Amino acid sequence: MATRRTLLLCVNDIRATSCSNIITTSLPRRPIVRQSHVKHWVSRPAAARLFTTSRSRWQEAATRQAEDDQPVIDRTRSKVFKDADEAVADLKSGSVVFSAGFGLCGTAETIITAMHKRGVDSLNNLTAVSNNAGAAGAGGLSPLTKSGQITRCILSYLGSNKKLEQKYLTGQIAIELCPQGTLAERIRAGGAGIPAFYTPTGVHTFIQTGEIPTRLGPADPETKKSVVLEGGKARETRIFSGRTYVMETALTGDVAILRAWKVDEAGNCQFRYTTKAFGPIMAKAARLTIVEAENIVPVGSIDPNDIHLPGIYVDRIVPATVDKVLENKKTRPSGNDSGYESEAASTPSNKSDAKSEALVRRDRIARRAAKELKHGMYVNLGVGMPTLAPSFLPSDVKVWIQSENGILGMGAYPTEEEVDPDIINAGKETVTLVPGASTFDSSESFGMIRGGHVDVSILGALQVSAAGDLANYMIPGKVFKGMGGAMDLVSNPDKTKIVVTTDHVDKYGKSKIVENCSLPLTGARVVSTIITDLCVFEVDRAKGTLTLTELAPGVTVEEVKEKTDANFAVAETLGQME
Amino acid sequence: MATRRTLLLCVNDIRATSCSNIITTSLPRRPIVRQSHVKHWVSRPAAARLFTTSRSRWQEAATRQAEDDQPVIDRTRSKVFKDADEAVADLKSGSVVFSAGFGLCGTAETIITAMHKRGVDSLNNLTAVSNNAGAAGAGGLSPLTKSGQITRCILSYLGSNKKLEQKYLTGQIAIELCPQGTLAERIRAGGAGIPAFYTPTGVHTFIQTGEIPTRLGPADPETKKSVVLEGGKARETRIFSGRTYVMETALTGDVAILRAWKVDEAGNCQFRYTTKAFGPIMAKAARLTIVEAENIVPVGSIDPNDIHLPGIYVDRIVPATVDKVLENKKTRPSGNDSGYESEAASTPSNKSDAKSEALVRRDRIARRAAKELKHGMYVNLGVGMPTLAPSFLPSDVKVWIQSENGILGMGAYPTEEEVDPDIINAGKETVTLVPGASTFDSSESFGMIRGGHVDVSILGALQVSAAGDLANYMIPGKVFKGMGGAMDLVSNPDKTKIVVTTDHVDKYGKSKIVENCSLPLTGARVVSTIITDLCVFEVDRAKGTLTLTELAPGVTVEEVKEKTDANFAVAETLGQME
Repeated sequence: MATRRTLLLCVNDIRATSCSNIITTSLPRRPIVRQSHVKHWVSRPAAARLFTTSRSRWQEAATRQAEDDQPVIDRTRSKVFKDADEAVADLKSGSVVFSAGFGLCGTAETIITAMHKRGVDSLNNLTAVSNNAGAAGAGGLSPLTKSGQITRCILSYLGSNKKLEQKYLTGQIAIELCPQGTLAERIRAGGAGIPAFYTPTGVHTFIQTGEIPTRLGPADPETKKSVVLEGGKARETRIFSGRTYVMETALTGDVAILRAWKVDEAGNCQFRYTTKAFGPIMAKAARLTIVEAENIVPVGSIDPNDIHLPGIYVDRIVPATVDKVLENKKTRPSGNDSGYESEAASTPSNKSDAKSEALVRRDRIARRAAKELKHGMYVNLGVGMPTLAPSFLPSDVKVWIQSENGILGMGAYPTEEEVDPDIINAGKETVTLVPGASTFDSSESFGMIRGGHVDVSILGALQVSAAGDLANYMIPGKVFKGMGGAMDLVSNPDKTKIVVTTDHVDKYGKSKIVENCSLPLTGARVVSTIITDLCVFEVDRAKGTLTLTELAPGVTVEEVKEKTDANFAVAETLGQME
Repeated sequence: MATRRTLLLCVNDIRATSCSNIITTSLPRRPIVRQSHVKHWVSRPAAARLFTTSRSRWQEAATRQAEDDQPVIDRTRSKVFKDADEAVADLKSGSVVFSAGFGLCGTAETIITAMHKRGVDSLNNLTAVSNNAGAAGAGGLSPLTKSGQITRCILSYLGSNKKLEQKYLTGQIAIELCPQGTLAERIRAGGAGIPAFYTPTGVHTFIQTGEIPTRLGPADPETKKSVVLEGGKARETRIFSGRTYVMETALTGDVAILRAWKVDEAGNCQFRYTTKAFGPIMAKAARLTIVEAENIVPVGSIDPNDIHLPGIYVDRIVPATVDKVLENKKTRPSGNDSGYESEAASTPSNKSDAKSEALVRRDRIARRAAKELKHGMYVNLGVGMPTLAPSFLPSDVKVWIQSENGILGMGAYPTEEEVDPDIINAGKETVTLVPGASTFDSSESFGMIRGGHVDVSILGALQVSAAGDLANYMIPGKVFKGMGGAMDLVSNPDKTKIVVTTDHVDKYGKSKIVENCSLPLTGARVVSTIITDLCVFEVDRAKGTLTLTELAPGVTVEEVKEKTDANFAVAETLGQME
């Protein structure tokens, strides 16, 4: 075999797919990035992957021969393949692979296993587009990142995969971080023939400026700093009705892999609960879609009203033979119906004093956060402290909890008997649904969020500024977990009230309330209320000023001043936190 | 009452709602348009309707007081209202009303009746955003356009409402035409917090140039020409990957009115079949959503996987008490299973010779069109001649028919017993679904179309040019029916093959194949194959040239030349149409 080297890089700035950034080599497999050259290289095959191709799909009549020697889609044969091995046999190295699922819920374990079996010599240089990239252990895309078959990812969150974070920080893999709602919308756009759109998500953050590095080089032994081999991509901005938005471009791919609950032989799919987060939208944006089905049923078995993904988007169907993985099983005791019992109340006796004190502080914050929630409201609660708030609601106050992976009407943790791996929350924990709940895909879920339909969103923080700037997703060079849905959750602060719950100081005693954030922002001027273990601040987002409005029992204004790295006014009448 | 006059006109060019064009007056109700002034008028209430408002929804806690004195949304009370009269009692004149439904399928007849009952003195100057504007008889928005309560519409199609067309042509109502897929996407964007997006639909047409007048004045008695009081709005264009797109802005509204099949008391909705075309997307884009329910059920009655519209988007629920209207009932005889029998084959004997000959010509075109369809293909067939093609398919060739109002897997006309008013096609005719069919909303349906997932689209034509330009929706000053989905159907001609079926000459003997179209275009360089009663042309869309490839029996090249107003080459080997 000739040691042919192909360095493909597409540099059209106004492009419709992020795939145009893809660097592929046939041999050696590790991409070679020659910074001085790449800006001038445009190769035909890469260009062909752009949003619009001049090649006509229909010219091949019923048999679609895709570009770049990609797999043939034969519409005259049955869509049902013997197994995943047969269905992935013709996948090509260098492909852009859309991998469905949120966490390990809805991931195509059978197809991923088959792709892994192909081996790194046969199938490599893959770009994965996925919300997550598998867990550190088994499940999701992990086998393919570990084997080195995936060399680039477009993700919103890799938090639970420490090995991948290390691979990125040491320059072994390229990662384009993309806010979850933006990722979902870019994929939806790719499927729907929309080349670009504007969104408020990521404005005034590193997403806008392109300051999140995509690929690092090795760290300098002296300075410990890494060279940035490939930077992020800055976004254009534009003002509509006085508000700034960034332009985001569509994502399209070569292959989509997904897992569905019930699939008829024409490819019509049904997904159970939160397994549908990315499957339906990814199937539409890829040239070839392979579905692993937990149940393959005859055509006509599914009610036309209840099909979540029409068969037009599905090319190959294989039986799901690899078990799903439960990432984060959480349960409540059988007797506890609410499931929202606070930790402090339930387990004070056998904890050390310091721990117990920390739990009391948490409960104080959560109790105050609960007051932001009024009967009938729709609310989103971030992972951690915010999720404790509902346990402090009066019994006649009911709120609808949104979980951004695709639930409206999230309930408590399940009892052992209720555990269902197809129902998880945004923290990948098993949960239940309340009566009247609904589940939906991520483009719907983030439309709901970005559109301002959620009344209140409660989030944690690394830093909050006096003007309401929030930093809660990244510590450059150290913590690279991704923003997940956080930037989207704060993208419409005029319609969705943003409440931050946080310890007043970090573990080193440094104030988390600061005049200006030093960490990368999740959003600028987005926070309206800050609830800490010491006090409550109200933010005037227009003026960019803080006012102290409530104090915790025993806390003085002086103590707050001492522990706060930001200027603030003090309300004429100070309230008391319980 | 003071005769207060308010002339509201918002002129921000980069704006997010078409509503900013709205002209409202309190008294007199007929808007006064002073062309010389309007460009400088921006009033606060109109500005408040723009996409982003500075007013915070959550500032009112659980009770949302909308801008401009709009209805209060009280989340602490039950969403179920006694009746439609109660639910519309506080709607305000000057509101932007999203009216769901396609044709008369899914229209909120009960709510429209209640709005009509309010009378023109109490509720007026409404802007209706709707795919259609009711039939000429009863049903849909007709009562409100007849009463003069609606003074402006944003529509894709008014074809079946001749009275409304006359109202427009004589300057009594303003109409903004918007392609159906663009309308659906603009509404979806409005709900999802996307201020603007790019689409290929309408490029190189009057949609791009803003040449479709929105409001006409009275016709000049001498010239018979109308003055244009308000022109269309030109769209910005932008090139992505070498292809031109127009920028479209989001639509948001004050009120959405829809009808659903099953609604639980938390507002979760299920829609039957094609009634869901606009309901789910409109509910998300309006500040207040009122649903009339054919069945109101307790919370928890609907499977979370099968909810088509989550309750977060529904504010008021009323019982549907006005019957639905069947616009265009079509049936097939009970014995005919296919339902695709051609007219010529079924009824040759009792027709006049001329009619019979016309039918033979139609069948010849349809028979040739059928050859474009291969087994397993997904196809969209325009109203009229294109729908006859499937009757000429060999029995072993099955295709999936897409109907752009939201069906994949459309079947034959129903027998009398099968008629279901909730299942109609794009021509508003009653149809059936084949096993494996699915139904979906218009943003999904046009995503499928615009995204190039349909293999072949067969349409009729008023004119086709040598370069493949198509004109099939408008004759200025005479025919103003709207483009419906036609511009979207031809928006991705590289991926969806566009086939035109047409009589070679019109009823005056004029060629419909022309060097350049004189009528407004539906799309430029979109048609690949032209099938007429005389011959078949293949279009080289890149070069802009025609080649004659097949002749009908007894037709000579000379006859085609004589009857064709365009240059064309003749293929070396000419095929024969059957």
